[in-house]
Amino acid sequence: MVRVNILLGGPSEDYPQDFVDNPKDIPGYWAGADRGNLYLLQHGITPDLAVGDFDSIDQADRELIESKVNDVHQYPPEKDDTDSELVMLIANDKYNADEYYIYGGTSGRIDHFLVNLFLPFDERFESFFDKIKFVSNTNTIEFRRPGSYTVTKEENMKYIGFVGLGAVDNLSILDAKYKLSNFNSDHPISWASNEFVNDKIHYSFDSGVVAVIQSRDKKKD
Amino acid sequence: MVRVNILLGGPSEDYPQDFVDNPKDIPGYWAGADRGNLYLLQHGITPDLAVGDFDSIDQADRELIESKVNDVHQYPPEKDDTDSELVMLIANDKYNADEYYIYGGTSGRIDHFLVNLFLPFDERFESFFDKIKFVSNTNTIEFRRPGSYTVTKEENMKYIGFVGLGAVDNLSILDAKYKLSNFNSDHPISWASNEFVNDKIHYSFDSGVVAVIQSRDKKKD
Repeated sequence: MVRVNILLGGPSEDYPQDFVDNPKDIPGYWAGADRGNLYLLQHGITPDLAVGDFDSIDQADRELIESKVNDVHQYPPEKDDTDSELVMLIANDKYNADEYYIYGGTSGRIDHFLVNLFLPFDERFESFFDKIKFVSNTNTIEFRRPGSYTVTKEENMKYIGFVGLGAVDNLSILDAKYKLSNFNSDHPISWASNEFVNDKIHYSFDSGVVAVIQSRDKKKD
Repeated sequence: MVRVNILLGGPSEDYPQDFVDNPKDIPGYWAGADRGNLYLLQHGITPDLAVGDFDSIDQADRELIESKVNDVHQYPPEKDDTDSELVMLIANDKYNADEYYIYGGTSGRIDHFLVNLFLPFDERFESFFDKIKFVSNTNTIEFRRPGSYTVTKEENMKYIGFVGLGAVDNLSILDAKYKLSNFNSDHPISWASNEFVNDKIHYSFDSGVVAVIQSRDKKKD
């Protein structure tokens, strides 16, 4: 199993606790987008891959990244893709990994977040969107193609949401607190605030893309 | 013009600065969802309407809300709708307002945020989704029906994103930094990181729902 971790430019307040506490304990390769590379270097991790326009960081920091990282891809600020898209595409070309864990991609600017949320519909991500997992302090997101699945409760998370990102057919959620049977929709819908009864939930759907989101409240836990 | 402000239960770190600094200067009625009501009371605002299951706040605080607010709608925790949906629907029944400003609805739990983002597709919001504006410290979101529009740059915001929440036809963006001409998509897409050249941008589309998101980076401004 090849695992690649990618740190995007989102606010560090939203990073998961295990990454904040012991970033070097996280297995796998590391790639950084833009100032994500600085955070990694400042916390003892040398990125295996650095991507970005680097327009938001100063000359000295840019030189630090160039001197430390072997594989740097610099792009002009005026480009068609976000840094997030570029780093995921380049990382997939380079590693063809089994799992991509994306940090810093779910908070901050909502237009950026929605690029990430809707990437299953971008044909360049068609081959690997279901290997991508966004992880933050209070939310994780995975994308699923039509099929039958088992999802396991993550430690620290309390709720689970099943989100049809567009039309979806025959979505069934079996052994959760709130069940769903052969649900169809021609538009996006978020089935929020479901919960695990046991530590696993079985679900299935026949067409569309479903985002599975585990979450917790920030205040209460 | 009747304006209603609604405070949802999202984390207070993400509230807009003017609301944090001088909440009482914001014109209009106030409605609170769940613990949003507590924040309002603690900051000198008596909600005109309080909605929620109130399961996340203790008995004393619940009694405070009941003693101060004339119009309290309490629901059981096991309900089909989120508190956010309920408070918007009840506020619209009560006030039939021209504008709904929603605070605390864009951060925190992503499954909840996506309920808010996708509400234009919920038939109960069909009559008024384009009167709703989500406002936070770093992002604002408005929803638009097919038509021709002018959007004005908001003070403090830097970027603008045009997001097709589902299929969209003939989306044109005229006088922005990045232009678009009669763009069609059969799936959701976020055109992120556009910018104002002047203080207005003209855009139009023929079918679908477009979310217009103004934003800024947290770190840099």
